[in-house]
Amino acid sequence: MSSNIKRVVLAYSGGLDTSVILKWLEEQYGCEVITFTADLGQGEEVEPARAKAEALGVKQIYIEDLRETFVRDYVFPMFRANTVYEGEYLLGTSIARPLIARRLVEIAEETGADAIAHGATGKGNDQVRFELGAYALKPGIEVIAPWREWDLNSRERLMAYAEQHGIPVDYAQAGKKSPYSMDANLLHISYEGGPLEDPWTDSEEDMWRWSVSPEAAPNEPEVLTIGFENGDPVSINGEKLSPAALLSKLNERGGAHGIGRLDIVENRYVGMKSRGCYETPGGTILLRARRALESITLDREAAHLKDELMPRYASIIYNGYWWSPERRMLQAAIDESQGVVNGEVRLRLYKGNVMVAGRQSPDSLFDESIATFEDDAGAYDQKDAEGFIRLNALRLRIAASRNRSGT
Amino acid sequence: MSSNIKRVVLAYSGGLDTSVILKWLEEQYGCEVITFTADLGQGEEVEPARAKAEALGVKQIYIEDLRETFVRDYVFPMFRANTVYEGEYLLGTSIARPLIARRLVEIAEETGADAIAHGATGKGNDQVRFELGAYALKPGIEVIAPWREWDLNSRERLMAYAEQHGIPVDYAQAGKKSPYSMDANLLHISYEGGPLEDPWTDSEEDMWRWSVSPEAAPNEPEVLTIGFENGDPVSINGEKLSPAALLSKLNERGGAHGIGRLDIVENRYVGMKSRGCYETPGGTILLRARRALESITLDREAAHLKDELMPRYASIIYNGYWWSPERRMLQAAIDESQGVVNGEVRLRLYKGNVMVAGRQSPDSLFDESIATFEDDAGAYDQKDAEGFIRLNALRLRIAASRNRSGT
Amino acid sequence: MSSNIKRVVLAYSGGLDTSVILKWLEEQYGCEVITFTADLGQGEEVEPARAKAEALGVKQIYIEDLRETFVRDYVFPMFRANTVYEGEYLLGTSIARPLIARRLVEIAEETGADAIAHGATGKGNDQVRFELGAYALKPGIEVIAPWREWDLNSRERLMAYAEQHGIPVDYAQAGKKSPYSMDANLLHISYEGGPLEDPWTDSEEDMWRWSVSPEAAPNEPEVLTIGFENGDPVSINGEKLSPAALLSKLNERGGAHGIGRLDIVENRYVGMKSRGCYETPGGTILLRARRALESITLDREAAHLKDELMPRYASIIYNGYWWSPERRMLQAAIDESQGVVNGEVRLRLYKGNVMVAGRQSPDSLFDESIATFEDDAGAYDQKDAEGFIRLNALRLRIAASRNRSGT
Amino acid sequence: MSSNIKRVVLAYSGGLDTSVILKWLEEQYGCEVITFTADLGQGEEVEPARAKAEALGVKQIYIEDLRETFVRDYVFPMFRANTVYEGEYLLGTSIARPLIARRLVEIAEETGADAIAHGATGKGNDQVRFELGAYALKPGIEVIAPWREWDLNSRERLMAYAEQHGIPVDYAQAGKKSPYSMDANLLHISYEGGPLEDPWTDSEEDMWRWSVSPEAAPNEPEVLTIGFENGDPVSINGEKLSPAALLSKLNERGGAHGIGRLDIVENRYVGMKSRGCYETPGGTILLRARRALESITLDREAAHLKDELMPRYASIIYNGYWWSPERRMLQAAIDESQGVVNGEVRLRLYKGNVMVAGRQSPDSLFDESIATFEDDAGAYDQKDAEGFIRLNALRLRIAASRNRSGT
Repeated sequence: MSSNIKRVVLAYSGGLDTSVILKWLEEQYGCEVITFTADLGQGEEVEPARAKAEALGVKQIYIEDLRETFVRDYVFPMFRANTVYEGEYLLGTSIARPLIARRLVEIAEETGADAIAHGATGKGNDQVRFELGAYALKPGIEVIAPWREWDLNSRERLMAYAEQHGIPVDYAQAGKKSPYSMDANLLHISYEGGPLEDPWTDSEEDMWRWSVSPEAAPNEPEVLTIGFENGDPVSINGEKLSPAALLSKLNERGGAHGIGRLDIVENRYVGMKSRGCYETPGGTILLRARRALESITLDREAAHLKDELMPRYASIIYNGYWWSPERRMLQAAIDESQGVVNGEVRLRLYKGNVMVAGRQSPDSLFDESIATFEDDAGAYDQKDAEGFIRLNALRLRIAASRNRSGT
Repeated sequence: MSSNIKRVVLAYSGGLDTSVILKWLEEQYGCEVITFTADLGQGEEVEPARAKAEALGVKQIYIEDLRETFVRDYVFPMFRANTVYEGEYLLGTSIARPLIARRLVEIAEETGADAIAHGATGKGNDQVRFELGAYALKPGIEVIAPWREWDLNSRERLMAYAEQHGIPVDYAQAGKKSPYSMDANLLHISYEGGPLEDPWTDSEEDMWRWSVSPEAAPNEPEVLTIGFENGDPVSINGEKLSPAALLSKLNERGGAHGIGRLDIVENRYVGMKSRGCYETPGGTILLRARRALESITLDREAAHLKDELMPRYASIIYNGYWWSPERRMLQAAIDESQGVVNGEVRLRLYKGNVMVAGRQSPDSLFDESIATFEDDAGAYDQKDAEGFIRLNALRLRIAASRNRSGT
Repeated sequence: MSSNIKRVVLAYSGGLDTSVILKWLEEQYGCEVITFTADLGQGEEVEPARAKAEALGVKQIYIEDLRETFVRDYVFPMFRANTVYEGEYLLGTSIARPLIARRLVEIAEETGADAIAHGATGKGNDQVRFELGAYALKPGIEVIAPWREWDLNSRERLMAYAEQHGIPVDYAQAGKKSPYSMDANLLHISYEGGPLEDPWTDSEEDMWRWSVSPEAAPNEPEVLTIGFENGDPVSINGEKLSPAALLSKLNERGGAHGIGRLDIVENRYVGMKSRGCYETPGGTILLRARRALESITLDREAAHLKDELMPRYASIIYNGYWWSPERRMLQAAIDESQGVVNGEVRLRLYKGNVMVAGRQSPDSLFDESIATFEDDAGAYDQKDAEGFIRLNALRLRIAASRNRSGT
Repeated sequence: MSSNIKRVVLAYSGGLDTSVILKWLEEQYGCEVITFTADLGQGEEVEPARAKAEALGVKQIYIEDLRETFVRDYVFPMFRANTVYEGEYLLGTSIARPLIARRLVEIAEETGADAIAHGATGKGNDQVRFELGAYALKPGIEVIAPWREWDLNSRERLMAYAEQHGIPVDYAQAGKKSPYSMDANLLHISYEGGPLEDPWTDSEEDMWRWSVSPEAAPNEPEVLTIGFENGDPVSINGEKLSPAALLSKLNERGGAHGIGRLDIVENRYVGMKSRGCYETPGGTILLRARRALESITLDREAAHLKDELMPRYASIIYNGYWWSPERRMLQAAIDESQGVVNGEVRLRLYKGNVMVAGRQSPDSLFDESIATFEDDAGAYDQKDAEGFIRLNALRLRIAASRNRSGT
């Protein structure tokens, strides 16, 4: 790493690790550190980070509430593709990183900083997402990833360093420290590490923080109606809500009904498999609801094309390529399809289940007069089916007549 | 349709509709009718069809138990792709059709019949699946689809025709007739039509036949362990079971826990949207379990390739192209990946939920020594990540340096 | 077909076939016929069609020069995807049909016609393209395809009908009639049928109309520079040209150098294989030139995504789904990538060859300072490659350590 | 890099660079070096490498003729997919690397070597291909890439090092050294670097080594017939030839007619664009011939699926993932389609052009009786087309009736 670094923007949580990084950067690079702390809906106050940064002597402190832009400009566009990675993961961590990367480099621009720094390790996806984003947005930026450089690789060393450098350590809290590595924002909370490192071992009930277990959820279902415009949710039970408020409300209702827990082994971009548990209550509800609304409003081939493009779109986001031309191309295709995704979906939430109980739309393509098993008054001529089948079969018949029936 | 038809093999259920078709074929085409009735696990006796066919004067009656071949050679190969159509439908009806088509033409071969006939309507997918299959396997076969030809388009006319032609009508049962059009086999039971024709209206509880509602399911979870070999399930809780017995058992346990209900609007191949409700208890459990096992045994890129190919593979089956070269090509790719999908998955079934509680495999690629958040003793060099990121970022950095950051 | 048709818009060439159709429609349907004749650059005068239509008593005659809209709004957007069907065919006929379909239904709107009619046969793709377009743009329109209905299936009957109905037949020309079925517009001329129906037989030299053979082309190469803006060609040798003028000029130069002949067997949407010969001189040059310019201006992953989407996009157009939501989705993705495709390509045309002799762009991503085999002054750190390779290899190494080397 | 390396297998050409590497490895790692030199049809004798290695004191020298396995087991399987990278490059260098990687690790196994070494630079694709292959086949192998490690980065230093270490330098030849970086094998010869680093500059005529220019090629076309079995070429003009002999013969004939030159800018896996010129005479002929044969023997959907999978398959090979599960999956799909690709293709070679003059096959699906423009005696019922079109249009008509015509 270049030693000419004068000023660094650090993604700062206010916790022990990034406080140690702060001091280490000053010491190692002899540079000024600017802190950036964002409220993405992780459920913890961000203001305490200001006091901590001040106490550590930081001069320029950025603390920002990014919840609305996060949900509106990142989560919802991603949801338009019904995006899930590897069939299950709703990309809660992945989708927050491009926004943080963007703000880091924008603050670097504003403050004349020549580098950014983050607290992600060298084994995970987040380093990739931060850094690909930063390089894509500001190609000359330097990136410092202390976990890849330093030798403070155990909790003991880290705490010793903190003590030496006057970083206050809350030993009471440190003693109670969760065995899990966690990340949270308005879309989800994730758990990795500790007891989860054996994929044959079930997760422990007291790990989960956002949801009750299905077993502990209410015995009565709750019915909810979500309204959509242009593919994005805009209301719950008729009440218009901002993106962040809407997702927040769904997290609360979903969590209360034991919805959105996930326990998977996923493939990281850096090449290893890793076990993760996730709670995504609102996202799980929205995915179900959006598909239900698309089922009556999207043309068949548009829907199928979306389904075929989705796995690649999901990998692009998971791997950290939000700020790439290929993501923009796929987004353009997806967004092109969404102007007609308007209407309402009625759902029942019950002990971990999200059940679709109805969907309606001014743009519905469902045509009862054609689909009916009853007399359709000539809306559909059944005789058309014969020609349809015969021509679709023609290539197969010709092949079969050459002894290629393939049985 | 050719009027030279001498002998027809009819897919015969023993019910009123196909009994009318039987008589109508004799009358309309002056031909002999051979009946074929298969036990695919629909849950009704097939032997009564023999008596009915005999009573109607049929000379050649084929009644066959195809349950094992159905599950082993059609359902399980399809499941290897984690196949779902339009994100939700497990293709329970679609996957039975190629087998029936195959037996129809094989019986036609054996008996020297020149045509086959079926009772599917001109609006649905099943006519397509039967006929594409038949044409692909025996290109010169004639196909008769009475629903596209005759004028018996109301229940009244049908019953009048039955009465005129000495087909016994069970009026008691006819009066109680379900308002739904149903289809069942070992993989699922489906419901269409009647009150379901309005997608804003919820399904009625008394429609469902194979499962209790999540609300009515037991208050205690049940833990189940499924064993797999080469991608196919082979045991439950350590007990080896044949394919049909295994699926049957999972249907029973899943149904008891309210698992596998689905209420969707789907896009038919013939061009319309249609509402369908499905119960697929065992299939729903297997899909979850297979994904969990693949998550530790499949290479990342193999898994992603499967996910990208799946929507097309699902459409191929849904649309009736099982007996096509493109299906065989995709099957070859999928099967190539499955030799390592061996091991066990532990699941909890509870009120509609299938929760993964553990997966293990002799072929696991999960490497705790690499994935760990703890010291990995050099198994992974974090410094490698820097080069990995920098070269992956290179194209983005060059583009950004030409002012293409794309924000 | 409905017999309530009062007024039909006929795609009218002025030739014998569509003149017979004109009379047949009047006779068969007792309806008024409106003719529509378009100049798409087929190389024949369209005005004579007016006199013929008038002589046959037509009251409303539409004759339009659509060359610029054809090239600008259909050919060029298609070219942005480097579109070829089945690896070779440049879709010259396919891309003209959506425009004709559009004008037919627009004229039907304007004139209150309830149907359109065309002269395409029941075996080809063109009927599909005309009719899918018409139905997509005006769902209630009736379509009459006389070749699928009438019994005038031989040239003798057709000429007899013409004679009976006072349609002038030019026997001199009829005698010299080409053995090929041909179609032409500014993008290409096609040949089918006659001696081409045996795919083992080579095409005859005197069939080709737009190009000399490579053997007969000049012995000196010609150098040409084509300028592009936003992915579309705008100039030749520095001279700005309208879309139609530019394509026309390239047809002329390409034809003079024996460029753009193609002799293939293609798969029709209606299920059969068919032999076709094509001359697409200008299109062949443009395809080469566009790829060369994209090679320096497009990001790698954007280019690869385009290449992967192209075959489907080509099939969509070939099959007649220009006016579909899936085509618009893909177009949105493709167009998103083209803002940077600016610059110039220098080509050498010589006896059937189009050779790229240089490409340059203000938006070039080619970075000599990085790519160089010479000292790059630190622009690229070769050590980064080690980490890049090691992490990309990680999944393979883990698998190999489980005995999955796959040799 | 580990310093415990005792024995290294070096990919050795006998040239100056790899001779310096040989000495440098001994000096730097204090290890024994085993040399491996393969004849892949590069057109130079490999035996002189033995004398050079002996002169440098090497004890274990492997020299192998791998031409037949190269063409049969690598080139031909790749060709079955009609593989081209980025629309143009036939992957001549890429496809040789997996074989070399395989032999390097096999020799390491046999000799108890703990490392392999190669002479590829840190900027190119070849390092990736060698190393991914090696890691996939022998996960614990060490790889040494001197160009990424040492400081001999100029020709002067390299020659000084040679002189110091008693490596004979042929100054006469060094003076005449080609300005291009070249690679050759039976499939192609490539040129990079030097004057090619400006993509606006045309290649120089005297660079090309395998082919005459189209201008200098004979004035008479040559007609050639290539026979295929199961997708692979087996004969020329009726004469059965081994894979290597066949490709060699086509290189000679193609080169004589100015066929197979390519001048492109390609995207390297390591993130940069690079200019390359290639001569692939035989491969260019085979690609054309194979497509022609597939056009009459492959089912439409099989062919389209191949076309859609091809770009990804090409990238997999280009990027060095031959020994990966995803390549094997795609190969399984491709190979599944090839059993019917039997027959002959007649070609005319003329001044850079490969023109298809006929194709025939015992497995042809071309059915003249159906395709004909003449009376088809009922083989195809044109009325079927109406139903085919109407049902394919149904979704578009329903959408249009909701004002979604999309114009």
